[in-house]
Amino acid sequence: MDYVYGPGRNHLFVPGPVNIPDQVLRAMNRNNEDYRSPAVPALTKTLLEDVKKIFKTTSGTPFLIPTTGTGAWESALTNTLSPGDRIVSFLIGQFSLLWIDQQQRLNFKVDVVESEWGQGANLDVLASKIAEDTAHTIKAICIVHNETATGVTNNLATVRKILDHYQHPALFLVDGVSSICALDFRMDEWGIDVALTGSQKALSLPTGLGIVCASPKALEATKTAKSVRVFFDWNDYLKFYKLGTYWPYTPSIQLLYGLRAALDLIFEEGLDNIITRHARLGKATRLAVEAWGLKNCTQKEEWYSDTVTAVVIPSHIDSAEIVRRAWKRYNLSLGLGLNKVAGKVFRIGHLGNLNELQLLGCLAGVEMVLKDVGYPVKLGSGVAAASAYLQNSTPLIPSRI
Amino acid sequence: MDYVYGPGRNHLFVPGPVNIPDQVLRAMNRNNEDYRSPAVPALTKTLLEDVKKIFKTTSGTPFLIPTTGTGAWESALTNTLSPGDRIVSFLIGQFSLLWIDQQQRLNFKVDVVESEWGQGANLDVLASKIAEDTAHTIKAICIVHNETATGVTNNLATVRKILDHYQHPALFLVDGVSSICALDFRMDEWGIDVALTGSQKALSLPTGLGIVCASPKALEATKTAKSVRVFFDWNDYLKFYKLGTYWPYTPSIQLLYGLRAALDLIFEEGLDNIITRHARLGKATRLAVEAWGLKNCTQKEEWYSDTVTAVVIPSHIDSAEIVRRAWKRYNLSLGLGLNKVAGKVFRIGHLGNLNELQLLGCLAGVEMVLKDVGYPVKLGSGVAAASAYLQNSTPLIPSRI
Amino acid sequence: MDYVYGPGRNHLFVPGPVNIPDQVLRAMNRNNEDYRSPAVPALTKTLLEDVKKIFKTTSGTPFLIPTTGTGAWESALTNTLSPGDRIVSFLIGQFSLLWIDQQQRLNFKVDVVESEWGQGANLDVLASKIAEDTAHTIKAICIVHNETATGVTNNLATVRKILDHYQHPALFLVDGVSSICALDFRMDEWGIDVALTGSQKALSLPTGLGIVCASPKALEATKTAKSVRVFFDWNDYLKFYKLGTYWPYTPSIQLLYGLRAALDLIFEEGLDNIITRHARLGKATRLAVEAWGLKNCTQKEEWYSDTVTAVVIPSHIDSAEIVRRAWKRYNLSLGLGLNKVAGKVFRIGHLGNLNELQLLGCLAGVEMVLKDVGYPVKLGSGVAAASAYLQNSTPLIPSRI
Amino acid sequence: MDYVYGPGRNHLFVPGPVNIPDQVLRAMNRNNEDYRSPAVPALTKTLLEDVKKIFKTTSGTPFLIPTTGTGAWESALTNTLSPGDRIVSFLIGQFSLLWIDQQQRLNFKVDVVESEWGQGANLDVLASKIAEDTAHTIKAICIVHNETATGVTNNLATVRKILDHYQHPALFLVDGVSSICALDFRMDEWGIDVALTGSQKALSLPTGLGIVCASPKALEATKTAKSVRVFFDWNDYLKFYKLGTYWPYTPSIQLLYGLRAALDLIFEEGLDNIITRHARLGKATRLAVEAWGLKNCTQKEEWYSDTVTAVVIPSHIDSAEIVRRAWKRYNLSLGLGLNKVAGKVFRIGHLGNLNELQLLGCLAGVEMVLKDVGYPVKLGSGVAAASAYLQNSTPLIPSRI
Repeated sequence: MDYVYGPGRNHLFVPGPVNIPDQVLRAMNRNNEDYRSPAVPALTKTLLEDVKKIFKTTSGTPFLIPTTGTGAWESALTNTLSPGDRIVSFLIGQFSLLWIDQQQRLNFKVDVVESEWGQGANLDVLASKIAEDTAHTIKAICIVHNETATGVTNNLATVRKILDHYQHPALFLVDGVSSICALDFRMDEWGIDVALTGSQKALSLPTGLGIVCASPKALEATKTAKSVRVFFDWNDYLKFYKLGTYWPYTPSIQLLYGLRAALDLIFEEGLDNIITRHARLGKATRLAVEAWGLKNCTQKEEWYSDTVTAVVIPSHIDSAEIVRRAWKRYNLSLGLGLNKVAGKVFRIGHLGNLNELQLLGCLAGVEMVLKDVGYPVKLGSGVAAASAYLQNSTPLIPSRI
Repeated sequence: MDYVYGPGRNHLFVPGPVNIPDQVLRAMNRNNEDYRSPAVPALTKTLLEDVKKIFKTTSGTPFLIPTTGTGAWESALTNTLSPGDRIVSFLIGQFSLLWIDQQQRLNFKVDVVESEWGQGANLDVLASKIAEDTAHTIKAICIVHNETATGVTNNLATVRKILDHYQHPALFLVDGVSSICALDFRMDEWGIDVALTGSQKALSLPTGLGIVCASPKALEATKTAKSVRVFFDWNDYLKFYKLGTYWPYTPSIQLLYGLRAALDLIFEEGLDNIITRHARLGKATRLAVEAWGLKNCTQKEEWYSDTVTAVVIPSHIDSAEIVRRAWKRYNLSLGLGLNKVAGKVFRIGHLGNLNELQLLGCLAGVEMVLKDVGYPVKLGSGVAAASAYLQNSTPLIPSRI
Repeated sequence: MDYVYGPGRNHLFVPGPVNIPDQVLRAMNRNNEDYRSPAVPALTKTLLEDVKKIFKTTSGTPFLIPTTGTGAWESALTNTLSPGDRIVSFLIGQFSLLWIDQQQRLNFKVDVVESEWGQGANLDVLASKIAEDTAHTIKAICIVHNETATGVTNNLATVRKILDHYQHPALFLVDGVSSICALDFRMDEWGIDVALTGSQKALSLPTGLGIVCASPKALEATKTAKSVRVFFDWNDYLKFYKLGTYWPYTPSIQLLYGLRAALDLIFEEGLDNIITRHARLGKATRLAVEAWGLKNCTQKEEWYSDTVTAVVIPSHIDSAEIVRRAWKRYNLSLGLGLNKVAGKVFRIGHLGNLNELQLLGCLAGVEMVLKDVGYPVKLGSGVAAASAYLQNSTPLIPSRI
Repeated sequence: MDYVYGPGRNHLFVPGPVNIPDQVLRAMNRNNEDYRSPAVPALTKTLLEDVKKIFKTTSGTPFLIPTTGTGAWESALTNTLSPGDRIVSFLIGQFSLLWIDQQQRLNFKVDVVESEWGQGANLDVLASKIAEDTAHTIKAICIVHNETATGVTNNLATVRKILDHYQHPALFLVDGVSSICALDFRMDEWGIDVALTGSQKALSLPTGLGIVCASPKALEATKTAKSVRVFFDWNDYLKFYKLGTYWPYTPSIQLLYGLRAALDLIFEEGLDNIITRHARLGKATRLAVEAWGLKNCTQKEEWYSDTVTAVVIPSHIDSAEIVRRAWKRYNLSLGLGLNKVAGKVFRIGHLGNLNELQLLGCLAGVEMVLKDVGYPVKLGSGVAAASAYLQNSTPLIPSRI
């Protein structure tokens, strides 16, 4: 089973699934339990209450669905919309593409607003469409907060401003898969109607929980939404919430305890401290890329992502070879370039439970790989640039002072 | 988190989620990995090959879907049928009821064939319906192999015989959630088109994998099935099978390694030995129930389930009190009576990775609880009946001879 | 590695090493740490403070020595005595025999007071010796509180009374390996000078910590004790206690965190509740033995042990065959008869983190094994006797009420 | 318990206890077992056979003693020597000092051959002493192969040559605590009589096993060795080896399974590949130190240690502040300077299950800490020097090609 054994730790720098803290692994290392005993609902209650904090919502209703991000997307759409409903959706990379594909297959009428890969969502087009739509035929805006394929972060506050400006009632649905709990995210303040993430991202758990949060307006929309749904139907959850037993079908006991531990660690570090840490690691990575003389796939600073950096490499080098070699020679897992940027970019995920020296080890590894594949990097240059920044910005670990 | 601490082990005798072997827990106690590295597809390939063995199929195509049994149901239906299609479905207990509810909400036209709870599926009615349906308007037969709520096992071979007798082309869809890998199950021999189970049942894993196997005929049906599906769409899987990367979206690394360990243990014990062990533990439980002077909810021996026994208690006792008290006083988890049999039966699950002395400990516990709630059981009587049978039938552990 | 695989859990009923609670296993599932960082001393400090509570001492000084019970014995002797010193020691079974062997090899002059195996220490002889020893040539009394080979508990309060009656200054050294944290044990009240146990016994941890507690008088004795010692020298520990770094050499990080978790569980259940639970399980076991028509190796009730029961079997049966068969057929681990009682007794350990249904499963297993080997037991009889008692005496689990 | 929580992994670079591979942690995550069952001896047998390979001996007899390195030292001395015996011992750092202290407290007559800290054992003095000792009053040579406090590796082959040259029969006792399984070590070829290590060092396990290997000549010496010993007496082990039950007292079940896993990983990587890997990481570290403009505490290249590098810092900086700050700010554990070099050196352990990027992360961290404390390091310089070497010398991971 461990036939790919290499000495020492794997250096996991894909933008998900990310490294799981040992405390969480320990919490999950347990036998099954009867989820109908009094213990599991009591645990679940604390989870539903506390998970709202990572969305920064008090009015939202969370759902912990045994699924992946793809399922969370489906639950967001089918619970709030009806076939034929008009959606505005932004195509800026592989994950927004996949969500749009899902929207189309679920029979919504999607206005696709496309940007060059490496650019953010074109919110000017959104503004025009909203301005024109006085009849309110647009039922929802679907946007990926952080496009994991290109390392682009979209400005959600602006989306809300546009909607408010035109007093447009469209639902505001957000994929926060690689942002929530890592980037600044404010569900209530930004008037987001459905926000969602997956457990294997910033929460630093195994894959298996689609974590979805619905605003009161989104819950209201379920009453008229005609999309066919059973497994993903929020109303089945709400029925069991009322009963106090919480689960319409069997949850993963291990993930519940794991989520409890993950939330405890998050609150111990402090959500805002976590967001700052991601900002610090993101910036350090970008400084290294610059020092290497390479370009960030993200075209403007306003879109820079603090959870993943897509690095553009010269056209005579195949970025897939970088990823392969990193894994084979240095036990370093980097993200591939996907679809339109396949072969052209590789990605460094700096998401989840991670610290400075882990990142610097990764950057040192990337430098060696770049040299391996013939790119004339100056070894140590990226590490130097990153550590110069980190040495000035990293705080003492509060609990250790 | 362990606020319900009691000394010693929990005695988990619900019919799922069941006890996880330590070997499996160990295999799952690991960090995330990049599922796009060469290691995960290589592992997945062995899983897809080996999981077919527990279905006893060589021609089937398996899908390991990050979902629960409810999602596995939905995948079976939506991939093979179109809205409005006529289904024959058997209502014999809570889980067949829930599946039928799903079928109806997915807009199929369901002929519900109801039996008294405690009886098996009425296959005479099936035979009539099939005989009459010369126009082949019936598109699928949906049947729960083992109804977990009442401890009733249906005869799947007979269903196949009826279909064959009338040369009826209906798809044969089977919920094997509490049967596959524990009861005699023969996908190919019985001509089953879709069979499914959940990881937390006889495979003795955590919840999180819906394991579905489709016959060539079922795969063919996907081409015309018009039910809307994205997350559950088998074709997305098949596309990635062809690419050799296997996963349309992120799998749980931990469950993959866990499934590998679970299959290894299953093959080490021997699938047929496992089925025999369940038969032995099932019979021992029924002998105990008889010795206590209580009735099995299952009305005829032909339907007796070897994975769960629903025990009917006198009407002046609330079976929920038995379950509550077992947990509170003896750290014993029993199954509640559900829906029509709520308060009337409690259930002993004897499913999954379990042995004789665990069961006898449970039976001793049930005896004490029965006495606690005022039922005049003779302490030791059930244990005596069960152990008399087990002492004659339990083999030496082969690896220890 | 798991070549002796059998389905389900092992039923571990040797009187040590005992079952480890899952909470403790989780706490120990961790990487090494630098034991010279601030974290490990801070943890150690809490352990040293809290471990005194299980000895019921406030004036004692504890040592957590990376060794086994045999090493703990050696540390007790060599730190307090000089070669040639006269000791009174009681030979009543295999473990007292081994300790006496050690005392002799360490060159002490041992007055061995022998009893028939199955009887307790002959305290009348002790009284005579103490009465006669007006010159105070006896430097120490060495006694095993609970002889694990025969299931005999000695009366420590009487030893103290004898010493006090004659105002004899002999040190009072106690092996509490299978008693401390399970039986009533009062270091301060009984004036015990050195008490010791091993982590794998009632504390329900892995083997690896010899836990020794020394009275002020015992610490004083180290100043004149001429026995050669380095690894076991308490003074090396005391030096590091003063420095606040605590460890003269490398401790097991895992066992420290494990001990922390074990103590937390002990205080959660309550030490006196734990002692009561052992009394309950001990009595239940003895009632079963009686119901089987078999004799307890322990000859009088005053010596009955609540942590282990040695069961005498008819002479035509080899008790080793019972132990072998229990393991091979039922995955049940029982204790062998040792030395003088080899072949004649088998032992049921009811020590450590254990509950009622675990014990009843074991007793049901013993019944089947007895029948397997030809002893005409009435199946269910022992379980009935035990559960009749337990059903009346087992409290609700406090945290679950 | 995790009150010193900081995000991400701890970077453990003390020269022991070292990082435990996940595979080994998993193998140890298990309940206790009866060590008198057939399973544990069968496991033990494979361990005793395989552990000899890491000593490169076929004629040696290994002992797995539940103790630490300090206890392993004591077992080596007391089993082979008698009080008053003359020993030649080399004082070159803190650990050789501690062993000498033990030798003296065990009442041997020790010729201490002292070197300046940072130098190796003075083998010229040894040669003189051996040459002069025609009466063979020297009973043993005690030498620490790798002095962990100063990063000095002694030349064991030369010791053997000296003894052979003079045909001197002295026993050759070697502390291989921070060398065996990491540095070139050849027990048989070098005629070593007792070699020892601890589980928490290159074997990458938790603390708790003193692993000692005795030559036939050492075993012969036990017959006349008059040192008092019981817990550490090899003869008690040999008695149980003959019985096939192996253990004179209770072993740690978890460490046995852990050792099995550790050996499996070692053989999978290849012992010689492991030694080469340590050479590679050692050299990379030294190149970094040089690039920082700092001095290696080890004075000559012939003594350079591939498992630990002690770095001398300018006198105006307190090296303890470097260690403290590394831990508090970057979650990096470095080794303190000990005794004579306290405050003057800090140590980077590059021992055990470790890879290139982990080391580079550590080096990047050291650079930031150096800057933090005011040393004018050029950030990136050490990483550049190390990675230039590693990029040329690191092989592809064989199992991944």
